[in-house]
Amino acid sequence: MKAFFLSIFLVFTISGFSQSAQNSKSSLASNVAELEEFLKIAVPGDTILMANGTWDDAQLEIKVNGKKDLPVTIMAEERGKVFLEGQSSLKIGGSYIIVDGLIFQNGYTPDDAVIQFKINNDQIANNSRVTNCVIENFTQPSRETQDHWIEFWGRNNQMDHCYIAGKSNSGPTLRIYLKGNENINTHHQIINNYFGPRPRKGGPHAETMQIGSSETSMTPAYVNVANNLFYRCNGEVEIISSKSNFNNFKNNVFFESEGSLVLRHGNYANIDGNIFIGNDNSEFIGGIRVINTGHWITNNYFYNLKGSEFRSPLAVMNGIPKSPLNRYNQVTDVVAAYNSFVDTKSPWHFSVGSNVDKSEVLPASEIRSARPERVLIANNLVYNQEAEESPIVAYDTVDGVTFKNNILNYENKGPVQNDGIITKDFEVKKVSEYLYVPDQSFIDIYHGFDFETIEKDLLGRDRSENNSIGAIYLPVPENTNLFDKANYGPAWFQPEDVNKKGKVLKVTSSEEFLKKLEQANSGDILELAPGNYKLDTSVDIAKRLTIRSQDKKAKLKFTSANIAAFKMHPKGSLKLENIILEGNAESNAFETLDENMSVAYNLWIKDAEISDFNQLLKVSKGSFADTISIKNSNFRNLKQGIALAEEIDDKGEYNAEFVYITDSNFENIQNEVLNYYRGGYDESTIGGTLVFTGNTVKNSGTSRDTEILLRTRGVVNLEMANNTFIDNEVKYIAILWGAKGQEPVNNTLRNSGEIKVEENLKQKLMY
Amino acid sequence: MKAFFLSIFLVFTISGFSQSAQNSKSSLASNVAELEEFLKIAVPGDTILMANGTWDDAQLEIKVNGKKDLPVTIMAEERGKVFLEGQSSLKIGGSYIIVDGLIFQNGYTPDDAVIQFKINNDQIANNSRVTNCVIENFTQPSRETQDHWIEFWGRNNQMDHCYIAGKSNSGPTLRIYLKGNENINTHHQIINNYFGPRPRKGGPHAETMQIGSSETSMTPAYVNVANNLFYRCNGEVEIISSKSNFNNFKNNVFFESEGSLVLRHGNYANIDGNIFIGNDNSEFIGGIRVINTGHWITNNYFYNLKGSEFRSPLAVMNGIPKSPLNRYNQVTDVVAAYNSFVDTKSPWHFSVGSNVDKSEVLPASEIRSARPERVLIANNLVYNQEAEESPIVAYDTVDGVTFKNNILNYENKGPVQNDGIITKDFEVKKVSEYLYVPDQSFIDIYHGFDFETIEKDLLGRDRSENNSIGAIYLPVPENTNLFDKANYGPAWFQPEDVNKKGKVLKVTSSEEFLKKLEQANSGDILELAPGNYKLDTSVDIAKRLTIRSQDKKAKLKFTSANIAAFKMHPKGSLKLENIILEGNAESNAFETLDENMSVAYNLWIKDAEISDFNQLLKVSKGSFADTISIKNSNFRNLKQGIALAEEIDDKGEYNAEFVYITDSNFENIQNEVLNYYRGGYDESTIGGTLVFTGNTVKNSGTSRDTEILLRTRGVVNLEMANNTFIDNEVKYIAILWGAKGQEPVNNTLRNSGEIKVEENLKQKLMY
Repeated sequence: MKAFFLSIFLVFTISGFSQSAQNSKSSLASNVAELEEFLKIAVPGDTILMANGTWDDAQLEIKVNGKKDLPVTIMAEERGKVFLEGQSSLKIGGSYIIVDGLIFQNGYTPDDAVIQFKINNDQIANNSRVTNCVIENFTQPSRETQDHWIEFWGRNNQMDHCYIAGKSNSGPTLRIYLKGNENINTHHQIINNYFGPRPRKGGPHAETMQIGSSETSMTPAYVNVANNLFYRCNGEVEIISSKSNFNNFKNNVFFESEGSLVLRHGNYANIDGNIFIGNDNSEFIGGIRVINTGHWITNNYFYNLKGSEFRSPLAVMNGIPKSPLNRYNQVTDVVAAYNSFVDTKSPWHFSVGSNVDKSEVLPASEIRSARPERVLIANNLVYNQEAEESPIVAYDTVDGVTFKNNILNYENKGPVQNDGIITKDFEVKKVSEYLYVPDQSFIDIYHGFDFETIEKDLLGRDRSENNSIGAIYLPVPENTNLFDKANYGPAWFQPEDVNKKGKVLKVTSSEEFLKKLEQANSGDILELAPGNYKLDTSVDIAKRLTIRSQDKKAKLKFTSANIAAFKMHPKGSLKLENIILEGNAESNAFETLDENMSVAYNLWIKDAEISDFNQLLKVSKGSFADTISIKNSNFRNLKQGIALAEEIDDKGEYNAEFVYITDSNFENIQNEVLNYYRGGYDESTIGGTLVFTGNTVKNSGTSRDTEILLRTRGVVNLEMANNTFIDNEVKYIAILWGAKGQEPVNNTLRNSGEIKVEENLKQKLMY
Repeated sequence: MKAFFLSIFLVFTISGFSQSAQNSKSSLASNVAELEEFLKIAVPGDTILMANGTWDDAQLEIKVNGKKDLPVTIMAEERGKVFLEGQSSLKIGGSYIIVDGLIFQNGYTPDDAVIQFKINNDQIANNSRVTNCVIENFTQPSRETQDHWIEFWGRNNQMDHCYIAGKSNSGPTLRIYLKGNENINTHHQIINNYFGPRPRKGGPHAETMQIGSSETSMTPAYVNVANNLFYRCNGEVEIISSKSNFNNFKNNVFFESEGSLVLRHGNYANIDGNIFIGNDNSEFIGGIRVINTGHWITNNYFYNLKGSEFRSPLAVMNGIPKSPLNRYNQVTDVVAAYNSFVDTKSPWHFSVGSNVDKSEVLPASEIRSARPERVLIANNLVYNQEAEESPIVAYDTVDGVTFKNNILNYENKGPVQNDGIITKDFEVKKVSEYLYVPDQSFIDIYHGFDFETIEKDLLGRDRSENNSIGAIYLPVPENTNLFDKANYGPAWFQPEDVNKKGKVLKVTSSEEFLKKLEQANSGDILELAPGNYKLDTSVDIAKRLTIRSQDKKAKLKFTSANIAAFKMHPKGSLKLENIILEGNAESNAFETLDENMSVAYNLWIKDAEISDFNQLLKVSKGSFADTISIKNSNFRNLKQGIALAEEIDDKGEYNAEFVYITDSNFENIQNEVLNYYRGGYDESTIGGTLVFTGNTVKNSGTSRDTEILLRTRGVVNLEMANNTFIDNEVKYIAILWGAKGQEPVNNTLRNSGEIKVEENLKQKLMY
C-alpha cells in the first residue's frame, strides 16, 4: 500500500459527494465533549476535525444532518493519526455525514458494534459514508462475546477505502440489517476496502460480511460489494453470507480466504468479475456456493482452488422441498456463464449437500432432495494442468442443469457427459502473477436468454466486438495485473507484517530464561544452552516465541504444583523445539487462560520429550488454538493427554482448528491420549482437522473409565494412518465418522481396542 | 356498457403500440389455414382480419414477430362478430402481436388454456396484447377438468378491455407463470377488463386470477392489475391470489365478489385506490388478506363488507415461524394508510389464522404462532352507522402493530385500545351510489416513513395541498361516481342478464307438462292447474324453470323405476312450489347427471310434499349445487334424504355451497336425512353452509347402519336451531364442529340420539 498523506481538501474530491462549501466552517475538536458541541452547531458543509492523538474510551455519537452537496464531515486532523482505543465506538445518525480517517485499535467496543450506521431506531443514518478508516484487532476480550465491527442500517450508506482485520470473536465483521422499511432498498456501497486477515474461529458466526438474515431474506437489499480485497478471511466457511435479494458482487478479490462467497438466502444476486485465488496447500479455500433463485454468475476467475463439496469453486446445492425460511431453498433459474477456472480441482459440484441417505439421523425437514432446476452453465472455460479429476462432481442426478458451449482442456471422464462440455486441446500462458489465459480464442459462443446483458469481460472490456468463451477474451495486453493490493483500503495505511522474523536470544540459566522471556519481542527465539533449568513459576506465552536448544537437548524441570508449566495467552504462539520438559506429576504441562482467550493461540512441539505431568494440554471454554502441532516427540507418564473438548454447547464451536500429531510416542497416558470435540449439526460448521499419523501409543488408557483412547467426536476432517497401538486396554482406540470419508489406514493394533467406523453421527440440530 | 363499433383504424390509436404503418398490408382470412398462410408472410405492421362468423374447433397458433412501433395485428373483421366455438384455443408466440375483438363461446379449450401467451417453451410471447376479447361460459364439460382461460408467459404482455365470465371448472381463470428467467420481471398489464361472474365452485382452484405460485413466489413479477372490474367473482375464497413480488393492484373494483384480494405469497405488493363493495346479505364478501412482507395498502375504499376472519375487510394473518415456502410467512413491514372503511363490520382483523390451540390436531409445522411485526396502521377512516362491533378483532396479542392517527366515528370498546385509534363525532354523506364521504376533514395526519410517496387520493387528486385522513379528501365534487360498469371490458359487448324474468306457461295435463317443459325458455314458469299428473319419464332440468301450482297443490305421480323424477343438468335451476310429488319407492326424486356437471345447478323446494322415493337427492362426484333450499315442505317414506357426499378425495371440494332446510317435516327416512361432506384441511377452503332450522324429524334413521342422522362433517358454516327430533333411534342426531363456532340452539330431542359438539376435527392436510 502506498503511504502518502491526503490533505483535508483532498477529501472533497474523493468523497463522492461533491460540495460547494463556500460558507462552511472547519473546527478542531480535542475531545468528545468538544466534538459534541461542534456537532450541535454544525450546518451542512461543515467539517469537524478530530485532534491527532489517542482518544481513549471515546463513544462517539454523530447526530447531524448535511445536505446532498453539503455533507457534514468528521475527520481526523491528519488521517491515520487519530486513534480510538479502549472502549470506543462510533454511531452515526442523520444524513449526508462523512467520517474520515480514524483508526480503532487496542480495545474493543462496549456496545453491539464498533461503527454503527444508526444511533437508535429513530435516528438512522442515510446517505452517509465512512471512509479511510481502520479497525484492527479491536476484538472482544472473550471470543464468545458477540459483536459486529460495522453495522449498516438505513439507506444509501457507504464504507470505502477502509482496512478491517483481526476480528477473533463471535459475530460477522460487517453486518447489514434489513429489518423495517427504513432499512430496505438500501443501495449501500461497500467498495475499495481491504478486508485483512480474519483468523479461523472454529465454528460459526465468523463471516467477514453478512447481508441480511434468513428472516429478512425476502427483502430487496440492493447492496453493492465491489472492488474489495478479501485477504485471508478465514473466519468460517462463509466469507460473505448473502441473505437478501438483488445484491451485487463485482470485481472483488478473494485471496487465499478459507471460505466461499455464499448466496445463503435471498435471490437474484449478481456475481460478476470477481477473482478467487487459492493455493496448493489448502482445501479450505472455496469459490461461490449457490442456494436459491435467479443468480447470475459471470466473468469470474477461479485460480488454484483445491476445495470440494461446500468449498468447491462453484457449489450448487440441493434444496429442501418447500424449505422453511431458514433452511435451504431449491436452486432454480441460475446462470453461470463466461467464467474461467484455471487449475481448480473439480470446478463444478452439483447437488452439494444432498443427504437423502441421512434420513435415519436427520428429521425429514432436513433432507435436501430438491435438485437444481433450470440452471444454465454456458461459455465457461476450464483448464487443468493435471486433469486427475472430473470437471463435475455430482451428489445426485444432474437433470436440471443445461450445459452449453463450455470448453475443457482435458477429457471429461466423469459421470455427467454432455454435448455442452467440449474438450479442446489448448494450453494457458501466464500473463502476470495468478493470471493465466488460453493460447487461443473460442468464439463458438452460446447466446442464451438475456446474455446480451453480459456486456464486458473480467477486465472490463466490451464483449460486443471481440469475444470469447471464458472470463477474458484475447488478446490480453502484456503486463496486465490481475489485481494490486495497493488499490485497497486507506492509501496511507500499511498492515503489520505478522510473520516478521525476530532475533535469537541466548540463555544459559533459569533466571536468564525468565528475564529474556519477558524482554523478548514477538518473533524472537530463546536458545537454551544444554543443561538443566529449574522452573517454579508458570511461563506466560503472550507473543510469538520459539524456545529451543541446539544440538543436545536442554532440560526444563518444572517443580511447582497446581499451576501449569506454560500458560498460553491470547495471540500467544509457542514453538518448543529440542527440549526436555519434566513435571512433578501434579501440574499440567500446557494450559490456556481460564477466560478471555480473545485471540487464537498456537502450539508447536518438535523433537521434544515431555513427562510426568497431570495433563499435557488443558484448555478453557472459549479458547481456540489455530494449530497444535506435535512432531517427532515423546510423552511419558501423564494422567491425560490433550483435551480440546470444552465447547460442549453443541453450537458448532470447537477448541482447535488443526491438530497434527505425527511421528511421536505416547507411553503410560492413564486416560485419553486425545479428546477433541465438535458438537452441533449444521453444515456451515465443517471444521476441526486431526492428522494422527506415524505415532506409537503404548500402555495407555489404563484408567477404568477410559472407553476411547482417541476421542474425535464431531471432528470433520481426520486422517489416522500408520500408527502402532500396543497394550492399550480400552474398548475403542477411536471411533471414526464414515460419512465424512474417515477410515483408518495401515494401523497396527496389538492388545488394544478396535478402531470403529460409524457411518452417521447423531447430532444436535443447531437451529 | 355502451355498444359502439370501432373501425379497424381506431385500433391503432387505442392499442398502446403507436404505429407508422405506411407499408403494412391488411388481409382477410376465412379459416385457420388461410390465417396461417397470412402469418407466414406477415411483416411488422401487417393486419390480418378474421372473417366474421363462427370458427369451429379453431386452434390458432399466432407465430409472428412485429416490431415496437409496427405490431402484427390479428383481429376480427368486425369486433364481436367472430366467434370461436367448439374446441377452440389461441396461442401466441413472438413479439409485438395484437389480438383484437374475438369471442370464445359455446365450447371449451382442448388444451391447458383458452388464450396462452406462448406456443411452447421456445416460442413465448413478449410485448404482445390481447384486447377487446370475450370469453364467456367457455367451461369444460367436467368441473373437475382443470384449465386456465388466460395463461401469461413471457414479459411485457397485456390483456385489456376483455370480458371474462362463467368459468365453472377447476383452475384459476387467469394465471401468470413465472417459471424461468424468460418469465420474470414481467411488467404484464391486466387493465380495463371486466371479470364477470365466476360462480361458486365449492373448494379450491377457482381464483379469478393467480399470479405465480408458491414455488416461484421468490421471483420479481411486477404485474400491474389496474382499472378492472371484478363483478361477482365468487369462485372461491381468493379472488386474486398474488404469489410473487412487486405486484401492483390499482383502481380495481371488487363488486359483491365472495372472496378477497389475497397476498398469499411474495412480497412488496402495492394495493392502492381499490374499491371493495359488499352487501347486507353476504358474509362471504371480503377485502384484502395479508401474508408476508413489505406490502403497502393505501387509498382503498371498503363499503358494506360483512365478512370476518379470512374474509374480513383487512385481514392480517399470523404466520408459521420460519414457514416452509408453501405455507404462511410471517407478516412484517406492512403499511395500511389512508384507507376508508364505511359500514364494514369490524374492519381490522389481526393474527387471522392463529391456531395455537389446534396443536393436538395439526402438526407443529402448521401452527401459525408468528404474529404480525412492524405493521403500521395510519391515517385510516372508519365509519359505522351501527357500531355493534369493535373496530379490531384480534386472534392473538396485538403487539407488532403500530396505530397512528386513525379516526373512528364510534367508541372503541374492543380489547385493543390505542392512542392511535381516535373517536371523533362525525357523519357521512352520500355522494353517489356506494360513495360516502365524511362531513368534515381530519387534517391531523401522521407522516410516516416514505409516506411522501402516497401522493394521491382514491380519486387521483394530489394530496400535497389539500389532504385528509381516509381514502378521499374533501371537498368531493358533486355527482362523483365511484365507478361505472360501462368503463370495463369491450365497449361493444353487453353481458347477458342472467336474472331476466320469463313468462308463465299454463299446464293442465301430463302431455302438456312435458311439451311445455321442452319449449320453455330460461326464466319461464310452468303453472300446473290443480289435479293429478302422471309421469313415467325423467324430467330434465337444463334451464332456469319454476314448476308450481296455484292455490291447491297439483300432484305429480312418478311411476317409472330406476330413473329419477327430476334430472338436474348443468346450469339447471328448478323451483318447485306448491307441488305434491309422489314416487314408487324405487326411483330417486332428484338426481344430477352422472358426469359432466360442468356448471352448478340450483334446487328450490317450497310448500311441497314429497314421498315414497328411494332417495330425495342423489348427486354425482364433480356435481355442484350452488343452492339447495327446502322450505315449509313435508317428506315421508324415503330410504334416504339428501346426499351431498361424493367429494371424498379430501382435497377441499364439496357438492353444495348453500343448503337451507327450514320449517319442514321429515318422517320415516330410513337412513340419513342429510349427508353433507367437505374433506381436506386447508384454510383456503372455508366453504359449505348448512342452515337447518325449524324442522321436525320423526321416526327416521331406522336402518341399522345409520349412526348419525344429519351428517355434516367438514362443513364450515352451520346453523342448527329450533328443530324437533322425535323417535329417531340413532346414536347422534348430528356432530357439530366447535372450533368453527357451531352449536345447537334450542332443539328439542325426544327419544332421539344426541347432538354432539366436537371442538377440533382431525382432517387430512391438502398439500
